Amino acid sequence: MKALYFDGQLSIRDVERPKPGPEEALIEVKLAGICGTDLQILKGYSGFRGIPGHEFVGRVIECAEAKWVGKRVVGEINVSCGECELCIWGLSRHCSKRTVMGIVNRDGAFAEYVALPTVNLHEVPEAVPDEAAVFVEPLAAAAEILEQKPIPARLRVAVLGDGNLGLLVAQVLTQAWARVTLIGKHPWKLDLAQTWDVAATHMADGRLPAASFPMVVDATGSPAGLDEAFRLVAPRGTVIMKSTFHGPARFDATKLVVDEVTLLGSRCGTFPQALQLLAKGAVKVDQLVAKTFPLAQALTAFKYVADSSCLKVLLNPSPQ
Amino acid sequence: MKALYFDGQLSIRDVERPKPGPEEALIEVKLAGICGTDLQILKGYSGFRGIPGHEFVGRVIECAEAKWVGKRVVGEINVSCGECELCIWGLSRHCSKRTVMGIVNRDGAFAEYVALPTVNLHEVPEAVPDEAAVFVEPLAAAAEILEQKPIPARLRVAVLGDGNLGLLVAQVLTQAWARVTLIGKHPWKLDLAQTWDVAATHMADGRLPAASFPMVVDATGSPAGLDEAFRLVAPRGTVIMKSTFHGPARFDATKLVVDEVTLLGSRCGTFPQALQLLAKGAVKVDQLVAKTFPLAQALTAFKYVADSSCLKVLLNPSPQ
Repeated sequence: MKALYFDGQLSIRDVERPKPGPEEALIEVKLAGICGTDLQILKGYSGFRGIPGHEFVGRVIECAEAKWVGKRVVGEINVSCGECELCIWGLSRHCSKRTVMGIVNRDGAFAEYVALPTVNLHEVPEAVPDEAAVFVEPLAAAAEILEQKPIPARLRVAVLGDGNLGLLVAQVLTQAWARVTLIGKHPWKLDLAQTWDVAATHMADGRLPAASFPMVVDATGSPAGLDEAFRLVAPRGTVIMKSTFHGPARFDATKLVVDEVTLLGSRCGTFPQALQLLAKGAVKVDQLVAKTFPLAQALTAFKYVADSSCLKVLLNPSPQ
Repeated sequence: MKALYFDGQLSIRDVERPKPGPEEALIEVKLAGICGTDLQILKGYSGFRGIPGHEFVGRVIECAEAKWVGKRVVGEINVSCGECELCIWGLSRHCSKRTVMGIVNRDGAFAEYVALPTVNLHEVPEAVPDEAAVFVEPLAAAAEILEQKPIPARLRVAVLGDGNLGLLVAQVLTQAWARVTLIGKHPWKLDLAQTWDVAATHMADGRLPAASFPMVVDATGSPAGLDEAFRLVAPRGTVIMKSTFHGPARFDATKLVVDEVTLLGSRCGTFPQALQLLAKGAVKVDQLVAKTFPLAQALTAFKYVADSSCLKVLLNPSPQ
């Protein structure tokens, strides 16, 4: 099969089609999304070698469990032991034995086919088209905040970063009744957020007052985002860090300690809630798709993502 | 009166005795403790100028409210407006208008006399001698952890740093039923902790396994402590940062996000609980006093603290 491969360099290769294990399904990938983490992988994040790609929608074409065959699915990316304490407490995405599709020791979805355990799969409801279903993984990551931290209705929350993740977080928190202010650098993305009734403000438009938000989400994808997050957060407030990037970060330790700020790391979420948000139209993703490239043009697609300030770029392994 | 003064340099000066306001008391200082934060102030922390010192016990010698006169007292260090939202929610130590004795815009206790609002004062019970009462402020800071984060009985907690704060935190968490492992660099301090039934281990004695503690307290007073704290904390665990130091800190952002670690800043606590712990003997402080210097020898005392790895050094403004 055709696949995008990373071994220090990206290349399109012909590789063997994955052979699903007894509890796995073989999935034909219909669409896969390029994520900021994929760009970080190219810089060395997680030391990954293999086929990247962890946002996808596809159709099961082979599976020992017959009920899955033919189903349109999305798949949770952490493949876990299922037996350890973390797994039995519903935290399988923290299982110490896990592999992570396209990120840690497991081939991902930038390929014609991908294999995943059936326990990771979720059937996509009829109402959710492929172009929306491909957003389930980042949307679940956005919704993870709600699992980690209760948000009182009308809580004032700043979301830093107007990329895909920031726009998803802003929507998820808004539908959970928070009063969100999205802070970004791209007027057209901020305008887009405003069409969803999310208050949005440009970073350069006069700085928001210091210590004015009990919760700040850093979705800038950059270590520099933390400085502004720490400036905006109120005493005893919480900064939620959604960015993964390669290398250490700096923060204002004095502010953390003196104002007793909580800095909370936040990563993957579970899929059912995200699928529900898409199915009922509570989160809009159709305007987030910038461009879809055939998988064969994946190198061009990656360059396009890196060079532009576009939103989501998709890869299609079998364009018609 | 005689006082230790910092204006970029430390010196002993003769300064005017403070004049207490209508809701303040004038306190004759009996003992005052030198703290790590005082050493940080000499390096520029908080830009403080004036009389440092925020750990003390003394006797009220002048006060409009007659009932205070003659009382032996300790004093909370944050002087707040009492009216803002934070103040009415019991978080006056985060009041944005606050001054902080010996740290922010208010003279401290390294002097013969100090003035504080009566609302900040707590009478010291008979059972608590001066040499113990002078530890109320750092002990309250240690107990602050219990206010910020519920600790299930038998929770496994690592405390990094065997200085005064680490030894106090280890004791406070132990009496709250946590299973504490104190990790330090000084065999004699670790031995001392073991006399209080706190498990203690030397940093060099083979490293403890990574990701093995749901809670880690960094009381090293050094940015480097965070690296070890992040190594030791389990997925979804909490790192509590008790150290204040001048300048930014680095941390492993990947670990924070991927393991969804909570980094929680922790500073001052309230005094009643700390006084109670001392009164009932639940926390031992008598072996923490390394040496007491007359205030007139404060410069020598500061040098002694900076040059040695001793525990608490006290200043006595009116030695007999």
